[in-house]
Amino acid sequence: MSELTHFDRNGQAHMVDVGGKDETRRLAVAEGRIHMRAQTLDQIRQGGHRKGDVLGIARIAGIMGAKRTSELIPLCHPIGLTHLELDLRAEADPPAVYCRARAETRGRTGVEMEALTAVQVALLTVYDMCKAVDRGMRIDGVRLLRKSGGKSGDWGSEVT
Amino acid sequence: MSELTHFDRNGQAHMVDVGGKDETRRLAVAEGRIHMRAQTLDQIRQGGHRKGDVLGIARIAGIMGAKRTSELIPLCHPIGLTHLELDLRAEADPPAVYCRARAETRGRTGVEMEALTAVQVALLTVYDMCKAVDRGMRIDGVRLLRKSGGKSGDWGSEVT
Amino acid sequence: MSELTHFDRNGQAHMVDVGGKDETRRLAVAEGRIHMRAQTLDQIRQGGHRKGDVLGIARIAGIMGAKRTSELIPLCHPIGLTHLELDLRAEADPPAVYCRARAETRGRTGVEMEALTAVQVALLTVYDMCKAVDRGMRIDGVRLLRKSGGKSGDWGSEVT
Amino acid sequence: MSELTHFDRNGQAHMVDVGGKDETRRLAVAEGRIHMRAQTLDQIRQGGHRKGDVLGIARIAGIMGAKRTSELIPLCHPIGLTHLELDLRAEADPPAVYCRARAETRGRTGVEMEALTAVQVALLTVYDMCKAVDRGMRIDGVRLLRKSGGKSGDWGSEVT
Amino acid sequence: MSELTHFDRNGQAHMVDVGGKDETRRLAVAEGRIHMRAQTLDQIRQGGHRKGDVLGIARIAGIMGAKRTSELIPLCHPIGLTHLELDLRAEADPPAVYCRARAETRGRTGVEMEALTAVQVALLTVYDMCKAVDRGMRIDGVRLLRKSGGKSGDWGSEVT
Amino acid sequence: MSELTHFDRNGQAHMVDVGGKDETRRLAVAEGRIHMRAQTLDQIRQGGHRKGDVLGIARIAGIMGAKRTSELIPLCHPIGLTHLELDLRAEADPPAVYCRARAETRGRTGVEMEALTAVQVALLTVYDMCKAVDRGMRIDGVRLLRKSGGKSGDWGSEVT
Repeated sequence: MSELTHFDRNGQAHMVDVGGKDETRRLAVAEGRIHMRAQTLDQIRQGGHRKGDVLGIARIAGIMGAKRTSELIPLCHPIGLTHLELDLRAEADPPAVYCRARAETRGRTGVEMEALTAVQVALLTVYDMCKAVDRGMRIDGVRLLRKSGGKSGDWGSEVT
Repeated sequence: MSELTHFDRNGQAHMVDVGGKDETRRLAVAEGRIHMRAQTLDQIRQGGHRKGDVLGIARIAGIMGAKRTSELIPLCHPIGLTHLELDLRAEADPPAVYCRARAETRGRTGVEMEALTAVQVALLTVYDMCKAVDRGMRIDGVRLLRKSGGKSGDWGSEVT
Repeated sequence: MSELTHFDRNGQAHMVDVGGKDETRRLAVAEGRIHMRAQTLDQIRQGGHRKGDVLGIARIAGIMGAKRTSELIPLCHPIGLTHLELDLRAEADPPAVYCRARAETRGRTGVEMEALTAVQVALLTVYDMCKAVDRGMRIDGVRLLRKSGGKSGDWGSEVT
Repeated sequence: MSELTHFDRNGQAHMVDVGGKDETRRLAVAEGRIHMRAQTLDQIRQGGHRKGDVLGIARIAGIMGAKRTSELIPLCHPIGLTHLELDLRAEADPPAVYCRARAETRGRTGVEMEALTAVQVALLTVYDMCKAVDRGMRIDGVRLLRKSGGKSGDWGSEVT
Repeated sequence: MSELTHFDRNGQAHMVDVGGKDETRRLAVAEGRIHMRAQTLDQIRQGGHRKGDVLGIARIAGIMGAKRTSELIPLCHPIGLTHLELDLRAEADPPAVYCRARAETRGRTGVEMEALTAVQVALLTVYDMCKAVDRGMRIDGVRLLRKSGGKSGDWGSEVT
Repeated sequence: MSELTHFDRNGQAHMVDVGGKDETRRLAVAEGRIHMRAQTLDQIRQGGHRKGDVLGIARIAGIMGAKRTSELIPLCHPIGLTHLELDLRAEADPPAVYCRARAETRGRTGVEMEALTAVQVALLTVYDMCKAVDRGMRIDGVRLLRKSGGKSGDWGSEVT
């Protein structure tokens, strides 16, 4: 059985040594949703036609959040993202905002955490901007969809 | 119908004026879960008996993340948290780590975003520390449980 | 003649003691412009009708930048902004984007630097987003328009 | 006509993919000025002979600010600067502080934003340190002077 | 015997609740030294007569570092410093740079950590700037000298 | 005699140009201690058997602090750490917590400052968590033990 690599032989947490790994192209895609009342979703949609664009602001927040992943996650290596894009869209039934993030780098560690952090910060931003009208929103299904590159190779989530 | 307060009359995003609000005691409680394989949960539990403590590290990450909420969420006001605690615990069936955060301040805006950010960063940290053994973990049910203080008064989520 | 207050009797820089000052409502308004080619301005305007909104993104960047003023400016006191709004608009002749920021707090120091930082970061963001088509853009006339509150009282720039 | 590259086909903002670009040596030089009253400039000059050195502190602030460019500018890639220097000098007629920044890296994106951010933060710091004696200072002419490296090659501003 | 207050009844770390404490004026003074070769100290002293001022730069770094204390120290409350000053001076025998920091706020928690962080970051900056000529420098005697304000009242270190 | 490289010909501070240096594997090891009362050390040791683990939290703080070195130290280059580990242990006589940090990267500058910053932040965190029971703790002997890689080659401190 494989081990939790963030701990050394003595069980002490450390930032794993990746100095011996090659710099390869690495990609990760993550997704998540925030569920809300139909009325709340309507207000987001209306705003999209004006300058006050909830999804546009959430996209920017997600991109900026992804750049700070290694400051937030204790044992994450700092890396230089080469690409990041977020897709946010309204879904009618059930009413929700769906978010998918794609992160890429050329480096010695993967970018799963950057993709997941982008999703989380974007969805939190949707919550913040809509909480005055709907405090009961719920963030669900935040997960990695796939990754490629690196020693551990490609990985894809099972269809659910 | 109430409006999305983060936009002004012209639909432009702004940081809402709270200068006229009173400084009151404000509290928010949020929760969330990360689902995983039973085997992964076992490894977290074993670590808890040693120094390499996944839940302990996630707790610290959540606390530190909450302090940076206003840096991550574009229209969030900077506030001085007076209290923050996170409860993280392993759940057997279905296998998951549950996280609940309680944030408090004395100020002019609420601390819902701080409590939610604490939960998100803590759960992301669990993902990071276990992803070498389980990439299919899924974060679910991140939501506000209750809040009190401020003009909008008390609020509690419905039992689900 | 008044003195540079950021230096003590021995000429050493320090963060000025404001502990004896009252918490009052403080306001500052700043402005600035970025000049560009007419063609560049046209592209910004076209984007405003789509989701890719240069001015909307610059506004968010300015708001987030203002929250980090005390991290950027060495002797600035950390303060809790209670209000921040940015107005960005396209100007035809000469072709430019104009930015005005209004910052407010209730505290012991003024918010002039927060308003100016908001303007600077917003205009830099416009530069960043348009630099692929126009490297010769120029930021001009960044200045304080007025301030109120605090011991030094109200101040307004002369009309120029 | 070239396009605003920070938006994709659907007009959504993203961090442009630079993963396919080569790592080359990249240089950017930017400049700007802050205009002030002659009296204010005199006080800065006097301080330069003592430990309380406005220009020295502004230089440090500009260098530190440049390192945070990708945190401030939403769609900027994080890069590792290999060199940064700022030249700040007092100019008599009209009375002003002139700032020029030179930034270098070896990477996949240019350093124009880093050079411009260094200038802006340095000039804002001059404003902060002198605002107690002169609130009417004005930042002008912040622009890129030249850049080299990368696919878009060399560029120099026209003499004005 | 008093207890480590950063842990709750179950031994879990948390950010202590200070919401019930009064806002009082709080002061802390800390000190520390960096020992070095006499030759290194000479170079620092010579620089002090020119613009390249090691102690001046270390002072700015210490002030800026103190503002980020709550980002660095996991369970530290974010506070708004109202005053911060650092005194750095060269000592001949044994050759060293001495640093003393004084931090003040009006708040619900003390500023001991801010004063200590200011000293640490200032001394690290001296190390950084001189390490090319002297890698064997040693930081010693970093400690709190005195504090006042708050429920625990005044405290002063014993003379040593 | 070698010179302080952080200053140019005119004595102005700059971030040294490392663009011409090779990317090599670089390593630095640093150490330090915090002295305390025997009683305080006992409380730390007892906590180690529970979830409230002072040394575990200090280790995380040190790792996270090291990632922010270039934000704290003005003329430090931003680098991507490839490995970081901290060893913290209780010492009985005299009562103290000893900390040793090992940092590695593959880059154009060394990681001495990262190793030293890790030690300092870890020891400050111990201070913070124990200060309610012992304000007289003292941080001593923070120094570089050895470094390797880069043009200046290997270096080791003399045994003391």
